[in-house]
Amino acid sequence: MSERVVVVGADAAGMSAASQAKRVDDSLEIVALERGTHTSYSACGIPYWVGGVVPDVDALVTRTPKQHRANGIDLRLRSEATAVDLDRREVEVRDHAGASTYRLGFDHLVLATGARPRRPDVPGVDAAGIHGVQTLDDGERLLESLERTPRRGVVVGGGYIGVEMAEAMFLRGLEVTVLTRSAEPMATLDPDMGNQVHRAMEGIGIDVRTEVRLDGFETGPDGRVTAVGTDAGTFPADLVVLGTGVAPETTLAREAGLTLGRWGGLVTDLQMRVFDTDGVWAAGDCVESIDLVSGNRVHVALGTHANKQGRVLGTNLGGGYATFPGVVGTAVSKVCELEIARTGLREADCDAVGFRWLAVTVDSTTRAGYYPDAAPITVKLVVEQRTGRLLGGQIVGREGAAKRVDILAVALWNRMTVEEIALLDLGYAPPFSPVWDPVLIAARKAADAVRTG
Amino acid sequence: MSERVVVVGADAAGMSAASQAKRVDDSLEIVALERGTHTSYSACGIPYWVGGVVPDVDALVTRTPKQHRANGIDLRLRSEATAVDLDRREVEVRDHAGASTYRLGFDHLVLATGARPRRPDVPGVDAAGIHGVQTLDDGERLLESLERTPRRGVVVGGGYIGVEMAEAMFLRGLEVTVLTRSAEPMATLDPDMGNQVHRAMEGIGIDVRTEVRLDGFETGPDGRVTAVGTDAGTFPADLVVLGTGVAPETTLAREAGLTLGRWGGLVTDLQMRVFDTDGVWAAGDCVESIDLVSGNRVHVALGTHANKQGRVLGTNLGGGYATFPGVVGTAVSKVCELEIARTGLREADCDAVGFRWLAVTVDSTTRAGYYPDAAPITVKLVVEQRTGRLLGGQIVGREGAAKRVDILAVALWNRMTVEEIALLDLGYAPPFSPVWDPVLIAARKAADAVRTG
Repeated sequence: MSERVVVVGADAAGMSAASQAKRVDDSLEIVALERGTHTSYSACGIPYWVGGVVPDVDALVTRTPKQHRANGIDLRLRSEATAVDLDRREVEVRDHAGASTYRLGFDHLVLATGARPRRPDVPGVDAAGIHGVQTLDDGERLLESLERTPRRGVVVGGGYIGVEMAEAMFLRGLEVTVLTRSAEPMATLDPDMGNQVHRAMEGIGIDVRTEVRLDGFETGPDGRVTAVGTDAGTFPADLVVLGTGVAPETTLAREAGLTLGRWGGLVTDLQMRVFDTDGVWAAGDCVESIDLVSGNRVHVALGTHANKQGRVLGTNLGGGYATFPGVVGTAVSKVCELEIARTGLREADCDAVGFRWLAVTVDSTTRAGYYPDAAPITVKLVVEQRTGRLLGGQIVGREGAAKRVDILAVALWNRMTVEEIALLDLGYAPPFSPVWDPVLIAARKAADAVRTG
Repeated sequence: MSERVVVVGADAAGMSAASQAKRVDDSLEIVALERGTHTSYSACGIPYWVGGVVPDVDALVTRTPKQHRANGIDLRLRSEATAVDLDRREVEVRDHAGASTYRLGFDHLVLATGARPRRPDVPGVDAAGIHGVQTLDDGERLLESLERTPRRGVVVGGGYIGVEMAEAMFLRGLEVTVLTRSAEPMATLDPDMGNQVHRAMEGIGIDVRTEVRLDGFETGPDGRVTAVGTDAGTFPADLVVLGTGVAPETTLAREAGLTLGRWGGLVTDLQMRVFDTDGVWAAGDCVESIDLVSGNRVHVALGTHANKQGRVLGTNLGGGYATFPGVVGTAVSKVCELEIARTGLREADCDAVGFRWLAVTVDSTTRAGYYPDAAPITVKLVVEQRTGRLLGGQIVGREGAAKRVDILAVALWNRMTVEEIALLDLGYAPPFSPVWDPVLIAARKAADAVRTG
């Protein structure tokens, strides 16, 4: 008799796992439970859909339910796993369509429950016109709100979702205010680099307010949001987007008695098996990953990790062999013309884990200075003082800036020193880079700083 | 008494060395001999100047003679080193301005004599209207020829200079033909990737003729070139550009009795000291470098290496410590909208050095497929069969394609396997990459190929 795999959550991680497992071992019976109605979509694409850059929501869907079913996966939509009994090896399923509940046995359980938005615990947060941007349904509701032609949009939170949604609303013609409790927007960068983002956003005409505490939301007679209350005053708002971060969605796992990590995520071995369990696997935004720079577990909710982890999980589940070694913390984003990238540890992260560091920052251009459209780029490197080992890097600039972070990401992966990095054989031609790539210049400056102590 | 350093050649390598040595040890007396009249210019920028993309030649000059002199370097223009006496430690200098010859003693000699174009040994090659593109003087003469409003341009050679000069002449409105003896243009790529370049050039309207043997040049009554004769017929030409490659310019070194390497270049230790000599150094296009993939010496004439080697040389000459570990063979270029990149070994290189290899090629997009301006990109990887170690990579595509080669360059530097590469934490967001970066997809496919043998 074939083994039954129950997958909880049918987005990137869950369906990558299911598809790959089926590819490796076609005899597996795979049941995928999804409480919503969409599968395998690009949540990272939602801001561009909302902003009108990507016109069609279908474009965000990598694989439809129909396609998954054609691949032999028993996909059940509007089906929520409400409990897991690890002893009996059963999942309790709530069928929202049929309004019934049933129990489903499993040989293997794949938890791909994703992340949930952190909703601020303030009055009025559930009012109409206040939106998350986690699911395609969130996006649809946001677009409905935009049809009411709001004039003023407020984004709560200055992280990736915050700046991307600020761009989206700006493109839709709203007056946009971003409120963040941090010293600068993009707190995944050091404040000096975040300040560049701040200034660029202000230059576009986006109002950015830093070190602001959210107090609550005011609503009108129709129950819709009318203003955002803070310790820095009240901001009128016809539309509010919450970009206040996410946490691993592990309620089901916790209630089943599984041990969670420091960030509330599931903790797995290199093959994506949940530690101290038998036949339970996890991948995607609900797990913690190893940060290869510090060695610590971290929670990074990103589609690219979800896809890789799902694929590794599926390979092993199907009887193959693969490992997910960890992450280095790479992320890229943009707000209008400004490109933003980071990888590895920030200064504060180094302090937190005990690295003694130094930092250098250089300004250069994306192409040879004399070549048309040579755009400004700022590269910051954070380096271990004694050894010169690269610990992190941040890049802010215009076209052609952000993806240079990949050079640093591969360097971090290989624990390179800035002295080595400074001599890397990177692609050079005037339309693509100055003769010393900005990354090399920064590494050279950092190596000098290490040498002179 | 301070030591005297004589630098032969005042372009990228020589003047990087001179400037850095002076920076590290200001007491050094540095005499730099340059047979031309320009210093520290970007030869790589010449095609863009000729094409009118970069309007002003001054932009290509990083540091003028005046600036070097202000830094305390005794720079002598139109001064050619005609002989080196290693026993007496003297250089013979021909002063073309004063039409005199003198001898100059040295404690340290820096050979930065660059490369010389390989001129085809055929009748008529010295005719007016036939141009190299090695020096700023070459560029000036080419621009003079362009002022005669030539209609038909022929480029002999299909390498970097060939395709870049084809673009330049195309931008100047000429009908352009490229003649190459290789199976495809861009023979630094495997032929299957070179074929993509071929088709793109034809698509633009550039006539590319492959496997053509050059027989000679025909000239008119005024002595100017009128046609290019080949075994595939005669091609009318008002202007000809020679892009037939370069060789290390080491005549001076050879006549001085220095041992040259397999490619005719000088061979140095990691600090850029010429082996088996005392106080003789070399850097730039006249040296052979270690190829870190195969371990062999190679000759790669590129400004980026010249700058790095010069700086390493100068650091050591000044009493500091630095090494130049080698190259991995990275190069990027473009012809109009088509971006071209390569690093590491081609299939034929693997055969030549004894690697047993396999190759995979994938087509993807530079951004998420649904994001506007997602452009096509083709990534080819060459991998050691048994180990899965990356040996080389080639990329052809549109905007955003070429600099992805840096990921592969850093991976080669660190001897990564494709299985590791497939899991790298690269920057992902829809405007910058599909959720699996094209490089990761290629690595994944290669890892599968290694596994299945």
